[in-house]
Amino acid sequence: MNFLIVGEPLICFNPTENGALRFVSQFKKTIGGAELNVAIGLSRLEMDVTYISAVGNDALGDEIIHFIKSEGIDSKHVLRSNEHTTSLYIKEIMNESNINSYFYRKPSATEILNEKHFEEFKPSLFFMTGIFPALSCYHLDLTRNLMKSMKEKNVTIAFDVNVRRKLWSVEEMQSAFKMLFPYIDILFIGDDEAELLFGIANFEELVDFLTVFNISEIVMKQGKDGAIVKASNQIFSAKPKPLKTIDTVGAGDAFAAGYLYQWAQNSSIENRVHWGNKLAGYVISTLGDNEGLPTLIQLNRNTINR
Amino acid sequence: MNFLIVGEPLICFNPTENGALRFVSQFKKTIGGAELNVAIGLSRLEMDVTYISAVGNDALGDEIIHFIKSEGIDSKHVLRSNEHTTSLYIKEIMNESNINSYFYRKPSATEILNEKHFEEFKPSLFFMTGIFPALSCYHLDLTRNLMKSMKEKNVTIAFDVNVRRKLWSVEEMQSAFKMLFPYIDILFIGDDEAELLFGIANFEELVDFLTVFNISEIVMKQGKDGAIVKASNQIFSAKPKPLKTIDTVGAGDAFAAGYLYQWAQNSSIENRVHWGNKLAGYVISTLGDNEGLPTLIQLNRNTINR
Amino acid sequence: MNFLIVGEPLICFNPTENGALRFVSQFKKTIGGAELNVAIGLSRLEMDVTYISAVGNDALGDEIIHFIKSEGIDSKHVLRSNEHTTSLYIKEIMNESNINSYFYRKPSATEILNEKHFEEFKPSLFFMTGIFPALSCYHLDLTRNLMKSMKEKNVTIAFDVNVRRKLWSVEEMQSAFKMLFPYIDILFIGDDEAELLFGIANFEELVDFLTVFNISEIVMKQGKDGAIVKASNQIFSAKPKPLKTIDTVGAGDAFAAGYLYQWAQNSSIENRVHWGNKLAGYVISTLGDNEGLPTLIQLNRNTINR
Amino acid sequence: MNFLIVGEPLICFNPTENGALRFVSQFKKTIGGAELNVAIGLSRLEMDVTYISAVGNDALGDEIIHFIKSEGIDSKHVLRSNEHTTSLYIKEIMNESNINSYFYRKPSATEILNEKHFEEFKPSLFFMTGIFPALSCYHLDLTRNLMKSMKEKNVTIAFDVNVRRKLWSVEEMQSAFKMLFPYIDILFIGDDEAELLFGIANFEELVDFLTVFNISEIVMKQGKDGAIVKASNQIFSAKPKPLKTIDTVGAGDAFAAGYLYQWAQNSSIENRVHWGNKLAGYVISTLGDNEGLPTLIQLNRNTINR
Amino acid sequence: MNFLIVGEPLICFNPTENGALRFVSQFKKTIGGAELNVAIGLSRLEMDVTYISAVGNDALGDEIIHFIKSEGIDSKHVLRSNEHTTSLYIKEIMNESNINSYFYRKPSATEILNEKHFEEFKPSLFFMTGIFPALSCYHLDLTRNLMKSMKEKNVTIAFDVNVRRKLWSVEEMQSAFKMLFPYIDILFIGDDEAELLFGIANFEELVDFLTVFNISEIVMKQGKDGAIVKASNQIFSAKPKPLKTIDTVGAGDAFAAGYLYQWAQNSSIENRVHWGNKLAGYVISTLGDNEGLPTLIQLNRNTINR
Amino acid sequence: MNFLIVGEPLICFNPTENGALRFVSQFKKTIGGAELNVAIGLSRLEMDVTYISAVGNDALGDEIIHFIKSEGIDSKHVLRSNEHTTSLYIKEIMNESNINSYFYRKPSATEILNEKHFEEFKPSLFFMTGIFPALSCYHLDLTRNLMKSMKEKNVTIAFDVNVRRKLWSVEEMQSAFKMLFPYIDILFIGDDEAELLFGIANFEELVDFLTVFNISEIVMKQGKDGAIVKASNQIFSAKPKPLKTIDTVGAGDAFAAGYLYQWAQNSSIENRVHWGNKLAGYVISTLGDNEGLPTLIQLNRNTINR
Repeated sequence: MNFLIVGEPLICFNPTENGALRFVSQFKKTIGGAELNVAIGLSRLEMDVTYISAVGNDALGDEIIHFIKSEGIDSKHVLRSNEHTTSLYIKEIMNESNINSYFYRKPSATEILNEKHFEEFKPSLFFMTGIFPALSCYHLDLTRNLMKSMKEKNVTIAFDVNVRRKLWSVEEMQSAFKMLFPYIDILFIGDDEAELLFGIANFEELVDFLTVFNISEIVMKQGKDGAIVKASNQIFSAKPKPLKTIDTVGAGDAFAAGYLYQWAQNSSIENRVHWGNKLAGYVISTLGDNEGLPTLIQLNRNTINR
Repeated sequence: MNFLIVGEPLICFNPTENGALRFVSQFKKTIGGAELNVAIGLSRLEMDVTYISAVGNDALGDEIIHFIKSEGIDSKHVLRSNEHTTSLYIKEIMNESNINSYFYRKPSATEILNEKHFEEFKPSLFFMTGIFPALSCYHLDLTRNLMKSMKEKNVTIAFDVNVRRKLWSVEEMQSAFKMLFPYIDILFIGDDEAELLFGIANFEELVDFLTVFNISEIVMKQGKDGAIVKASNQIFSAKPKPLKTIDTVGAGDAFAAGYLYQWAQNSSIENRVHWGNKLAGYVISTLGDNEGLPTLIQLNRNTINR
Repeated sequence: MNFLIVGEPLICFNPTENGALRFVSQFKKTIGGAELNVAIGLSRLEMDVTYISAVGNDALGDEIIHFIKSEGIDSKHVLRSNEHTTSLYIKEIMNESNINSYFYRKPSATEILNEKHFEEFKPSLFFMTGIFPALSCYHLDLTRNLMKSMKEKNVTIAFDVNVRRKLWSVEEMQSAFKMLFPYIDILFIGDDEAELLFGIANFEELVDFLTVFNISEIVMKQGKDGAIVKASNQIFSAKPKPLKTIDTVGAGDAFAAGYLYQWAQNSSIENRVHWGNKLAGYVISTLGDNEGLPTLIQLNRNTINR
Repeated sequence: MNFLIVGEPLICFNPTENGALRFVSQFKKTIGGAELNVAIGLSRLEMDVTYISAVGNDALGDEIIHFIKSEGIDSKHVLRSNEHTTSLYIKEIMNESNINSYFYRKPSATEILNEKHFEEFKPSLFFMTGIFPALSCYHLDLTRNLMKSMKEKNVTIAFDVNVRRKLWSVEEMQSAFKMLFPYIDILFIGDDEAELLFGIANFEELVDFLTVFNISEIVMKQGKDGAIVKASNQIFSAKPKPLKTIDTVGAGDAFAAGYLYQWAQNSSIENRVHWGNKLAGYVISTLGDNEGLPTLIQLNRNTINR
Repeated sequence: MNFLIVGEPLICFNPTENGALRFVSQFKKTIGGAELNVAIGLSRLEMDVTYISAVGNDALGDEIIHFIKSEGIDSKHVLRSNEHTTSLYIKEIMNESNINSYFYRKPSATEILNEKHFEEFKPSLFFMTGIFPALSCYHLDLTRNLMKSMKEKNVTIAFDVNVRRKLWSVEEMQSAFKMLFPYIDILFIGDDEAELLFGIANFEELVDFLTVFNISEIVMKQGKDGAIVKASNQIFSAKPKPLKTIDTVGAGDAFAAGYLYQWAQNSSIENRVHWGNKLAGYVISTLGDNEGLPTLIQLNRNTINR
Repeated sequence: MNFLIVGEPLICFNPTENGALRFVSQFKKTIGGAELNVAIGLSRLEMDVTYISAVGNDALGDEIIHFIKSEGIDSKHVLRSNEHTTSLYIKEIMNESNINSYFYRKPSATEILNEKHFEEFKPSLFFMTGIFPALSCYHLDLTRNLMKSMKEKNVTIAFDVNVRRKLWSVEEMQSAFKMLFPYIDILFIGDDEAELLFGIANFEELVDFLTVFNISEIVMKQGKDGAIVKASNQIFSAKPKPLKTIDTVGAGDAFAAGYLYQWAQNSSIENRVHWGNKLAGYVISTLGDNEGLPTLIQLNRNTINR
């Protein structure tokens, strides 16, 4: 079982204090990117993961590649561009419910990727999110072509819609996702995203709406209420055990990683959802986008400790 | 006596430790920009300074505008662009003689500036550097047009060549500067810049070479050796008193500010050079691009303290 | 519409950790002062504000003046004293409900202010708080004389009682406030302050008690319950929407700023209270005394973002 | 009234951020040790306390001795060993309910202590916890011998079981504690500890179970529910007033210190429990193991401030 | 052999960065005071030292007393004043040769000291500096009276002139010191101080000038050149071995401590000067006023390590 | 060309300030270990490196393994021990020439390594230092056996003596090294180490002394003076270009890495020494033991930048 994941990694400058940026002088540099979070989640559980991307030929690009390597992810296919900077963003935390991000990601170094970079791969599962196709028209085209060729190789395709309103409009997302949905085997979508994109209020409506696209596993994430899944005519939902929330960023990515980990073990839908909830729980109770994702060795140590 | 200065301000993320960026996690945010440094230097000496520029309509742009205001500089003509981010760069200090900067400044918000924004002004002195015209062809055109119209209003024009090889090539600089020199009354150029741009080895050669452009004051900065000036057929040079160097960034801007401050007092060339050296001394013995520039009130306090 | 505000600014050394000071080694320096907070709140909403005060002729005084300028407040009337230090205090945060402050503010540099410094002004509104008259007998006399002369110029006078038991006794406050109330047009008082000072338990009692002073707008602040106001025979109260509290310091000042901003727009009492609550909400959900006060530009950005 | 306390002090490296240690680069060094916390609690209330222990002849040992001195505790009997390092541990805070500690304390420098170091002392009260005898067989033997000889001198012996499962097994604890209980006059035990060690569900069962050991004061700590005590056929329990919990480490030690302080004043059981709860409240609302323990002078200042 | 030392301790807020204070936001709190430095130097060498002083009844005063205790100095005679704050100062480090200090020390809590607090003492040596008498006329009077009564008890009196121009004028110092010199047995004075106060250019002149006061040991400190001493008709001078200078503050105090330590051992003048130089060397190669002063245990460890 | 390196990695707690540890509260965690530094140096130059070691089954061990992976070194053969902690040390920087280290490395987790873990390997070069055999008798035996079996496989053996007087005595080192020298092909030794161990004053004496061991390349490191080498009857020495020294720790390891990198390219002795000096230069001008070691990609970028 091996995973192929494509996405854009970003350097993040996190303020060390809340408030408007002009009152904050110290920042902590971390690494983010929704698809990279999923790759890390799977790799920490000792899955075989290849991450394809591109970064600038600069010190920030060096850092991202070292980080990917440190996680045991195959980084040989992260390209370097002399013409681009490595994408970054700066966070401004006014208060816990009012967070601004200022992005420096256009044009993205990932525009040097093309279909040839993917030809050699025939993974068990190919994972993308709705962020990569939002970066430019070129990225949207590339996304469709990659999905198409993976489909032709009988690769399972998983996709998390990951709405990013700063990158494109609702209308653009609607038409893009309708184009991509026919290729998708496992779809992750938040309940708020379903509402925003398609005016859909509950899971039945969502399943109805998606029937035409013939998606075999539909996973609707519901925040604190866990998730509800339809797969092979079975429906299952589960709530996570309540945990003190430190930082919700990356929780959806953690859910996808936990879910797909159990998919790779070929285990039941129940197990997939439970592990999705479990990994999301680790991430929301830890500061950072991916720092909370556990390794198998940590999970085993925890079990022993109790 | 009032000054009009145009330039691009930048947010800088400074590492709190030396070394490749992947080993540094904490950064301190400051504000830089060669022209802004000169504006600050003059304003701290209680000159009347207007700074014209443009930044993004984001929190980093807010910060720059608050900072400019805090220095008593007229900031009403710093425009906000919804289409641009505020320019920034990240420093990497391998060691004291090996410093890399990674810029995120293209396209620059300052491309929304045009000649109309300058029509209302007829300052005593108009100051620019070679960085602004390097940002794009549009910036170079705008620079020439601004200089031309200022010249027509009989405004004195001061210019610091400020070579930036990351922004344009030596050839581009040569042709650009030759186009701009005829408008210039006071020229600041480093000895290393004269060598790089025109293959010129000493001040006599420089004066010879520039004769054709009819520049009334030629100021060649010589780092630790101070500066040498030719003005109204007079030549004067002076070395600064030796000081422990903490950080040379901004020293050239400080020199220009000190020199132009005495120009505004209509004092002798000797005084102009002495104050150029003096302000440069304050800046090199302090960390930061403009933090060391003294206020009149500080200078007076120092005198009392002794 | 323009505001004239007089008060004492203070440098604050904030511990970076909770606990008795002997266990805390790092401190962060900020700037506070109740009247300055109100000035900042109004200036960020692009009101025309002049702040009159005095600080030491030292580096801490320099910092305060730069900060005031950065906020777009007219700082030309902040005097410098060679005979005084700039006032400061050190915070000790034992836990969230047990905070000690150690003040170094006596004698205050503001004792060099006198009536002549105010002669030239005839603002739309003159704002003071109960802190300034508490600093010394001289300050109390000056306060009364300033109110008297503003009254004679038909200036509207707003006053926030701002009880400070470390500066004077309840008895001193009672007699001082009774002396000042006759000059006041808009009075801000907390429900706990009304209880402490006059043994008053509810708004009707307060209105009764104050009838004799002929105050046209009486604003009783009620913490989490918002505020209740009587103005031109109209009574209105409103609760703010609940927000996670980070730091309540400055909330009362923010309320006053929001209220007076709408007063300056000549809008309804309802609007005045709503904006008072709104600004207080920004401040309590942000660390710091005035850092949370929004600018008009931020408010507009927030609206767009949603 | 004077106290003799024996225990092992530890240097603690506390992460400045939550998360797996590989994501944390900065640590803050503090000093801990359950018995030392009790010694500090009593000394800050101006009790006469001697602490007997041993540390390495290294800079960390120096620090511990300076700290003990700074608290006014007699440190002359803290020995230095050239053969041992000073014990330390590193904390890893995954989230508030998942904290790992990595100890470097074996062999402990305290193994150079022997009975002769205690011969000269005949304190009013001798205090130990279940940690010291857990460090090695030698420490267990020494504990029994010290208790025996103190008993022979008619010294009151207080003991807090302080379960440490990383140091020994439940079975080892059971047999050790049964050996030590006959010497004990005042026993502190948590309800969770009673459950773990002896399968005891409530206070009556505990009192029954302990009858055979003839312990005159049995104090069962119940976390947020305070404590329940049986002494001289009297039973008393009290809950603490609710406080926001910052950090529960050291709360049990604080309870013991407060309880024993009132024991030393010969005051009622009610007072002993109230002061136990009171000191525990100070510690849980403050970061750190002993930083929150109040001095008499602080307690008096607080009273004046209100 | 025991020492009695009187002085004023101060809390110091040290900037974590160089530059004007408005550019520095973080500060580190330390403890200073010339006389306290000498007390620490002697106590670390295991001399018996009593320090008499007074601080505010506040958290900063608590900290100073804990610190004094941690150094093994007798702190029982440090009084607490409810009417005073604990003295403090803020450092501003423009660059290594331009350091400003902003003091908040008037009135000083030490003005509650009087002769009665000293009656019980008859130390081997009484040490003061020229800072204490500079704090007010009362302090000068007290200084003279203390010296007089110590003299009557045949106590050896050591005095370091410690010029502080911010506290009093050269003229005031001249007259004060001439009044105090007749009581002094061991005088420490810097060569720059001798020049400033009495226009004296070399040691012979100094000895001549002081003949009238009948001082038995005259120690002239010469910075990097060590010191020159005249005692019992013997003259001796020695240079220290050169060390990289980190921070010269406290070097003079360290010299005095080293010198007086050997005086207390009754060793030769050579040894006194060598130990003065040695301790000064430790302090100048360490950041902080007294942090570099070594303990006997450290000195022994160092010897073993080589 | 591939390298096999065995050694013990250590976590290091570095003080953020100079001074005795009791005055330092903040520490920064890094990773060190002489052999690991060499492995990193070679891997950054894109050599194929396997590092064999063992760490505790704890979070510090996790960190070391992630770090090794991030550098592209094969980490599959770093074992985990449930019975050991991960080794660590704490630095105390009194001043630049007086640094103490407090080690917690006995027993070392590497004692779970045995010959079987090496059987599968036949690298181009096997590298060890004199630290590993110093950890215990077992380590010394294992070192000899590993060298013997590598020799039998015709593997080139490189060894850096790396004197550690805290781990063993000069006499122990002499006898150990004489036992190991016969197996060694490339020997690195400092001039000060040659002096300490064998009383040898210059290179000729060293070559003479070592003749009996038949070492084909003898490399004597001379600090600022570079190195002198004898190989295949050729002698070559070179000084590095002078650089400002920030931190000399790791310079010897960097020299070995640079030297062996060129050895692997089969280039001349001159080149080997030049690259040894070059890499040492990078490390001494950067803070940290291995942070300064450049990657090939950085070296190429630097060339372009100039």
